[in-house]
Amino acid sequence: MAEMKLHDLELSGNCYKVRLFCALLGLKPDIVPVDFLAGAHKRSPLIDRNPFGEIPILEDGDITLRDSQAILVYLARKYGGERWLPTEPVAMAETISWLMVAENEIARGPNDARLHDKFGVPVDVEAAREKAKRVFGLMETHLAKNDWLTLGRPTIADIACMPYVALSHEGGLSLEPYPAIRAWIGRIKALPGFIAMPAI
Amino acid sequence: MAEMKLHDLELSGNCYKVRLFCALLGLKPDIVPVDFLAGAHKRSPLIDRNPFGEIPILEDGDITLRDSQAILVYLARKYGGERWLPTEPVAMAETISWLMVAENEIARGPNDARLHDKFGVPVDVEAAREKAKRVFGLMETHLAKNDWLTLGRPTIADIACMPYVALSHEGGLSLEPYPAIRAWIGRIKALPGFIAMPAI
Repeated sequence: MAEMKLHDLELSGNCYKVRLFCALLGLKPDIVPVDFLAGAHKRSPLIDRNPFGEIPILEDGDITLRDSQAILVYLARKYGGERWLPTEPVAMAETISWLMVAENEIARGPNDARLHDKFGVPVDVEAAREKAKRVFGLMETHLAKNDWLTLGRPTIADIACMPYVALSHEGGLSLEPYPAIRAWIGRIKALPGFIAMPAI
Repeated sequence: MAEMKLHDLELSGNCYKVRLFCALLGLKPDIVPVDFLAGAHKRSPLIDRNPFGEIPILEDGDITLRDSQAILVYLARKYGGERWLPTEPVAMAETISWLMVAENEIARGPNDARLHDKFGVPVDVEAAREKAKRVFGLMETHLAKNDWLTLGRPTIADIACMPYVALSHEGGLSLEPYPAIRAWIGRIKALPGFIAMPAI
């Protein structure tokens, strides 16, 4: 296998979801810590690999990919067969719809609240917490009837959505009112190969 | 072909991207206008089809799908062969990475600014305009060197990203400083089967 390299920040939930999915797939990328506080991701050479100035960035041989959700798609299709992101149109669209929840409702909710509380990023933290509670409510209802977000089995939907939900206490939120969400996080933690990150 | 039905709002860029992609694929869904101002999407029967309380919602035979980006994925895989969303891992991930730009940077930028100006939604419009200018700058640099967002041809990346960029004047933004973006919008408008929406 070609050398795989992940430009990474240990405390980033978006980097963690890539590390976690690699672990579940049995892949062992070289982890390259990025000096985030010094802004290394905003400067050359990283900015040349990802003009959006964000991490994670995955290099796999001569391939370079940005965006944690897109990296999950790549890894699932390249190394996961039909298990984590099937090609059948409805199954693929259902899975992708939850990646959009990760990129939208979860990013604007628990992720933004954590950015405020833990990293001092200026966001409207009350609005973020309201958005978090809304998406938690939707997920709780869904997960009360389903063990996994879609397809009745673990997919990249679960990997994409779990980290910032599980980290929500770092943004002043509690999962106490959401037993189905807590049980779902427990099921993900029980997957063979699972790895943790600080605060999860 | 099974009956296809799109729960739609004419002024929604997210609904438009589905209408547009259907037109490019030669599909003719029944367009069902949703009484958005009356909140029909927040009540039964629509809320039963999409608990997130949003449109578009696509019904295709006995399939129901939410989220405009996920619907593009479904239509591309079901009716578009390998042209609009290929299954090859790198090509798929590159395409999906731009769907994430539509769901994140474009949603938080020009889309939020338009929601504020056109529909009176309470958002920090100055912050939204700053985010819009940042993503427009990134897209301008990219499109100065590329006719299309990825793969050297039209894909669902272009369909997902174009509407709220082309509607940005409705959020107090100008595309005057971005000739490559304007040329790209022109190329999309020249695609066989293209349809417009109000203000595009």
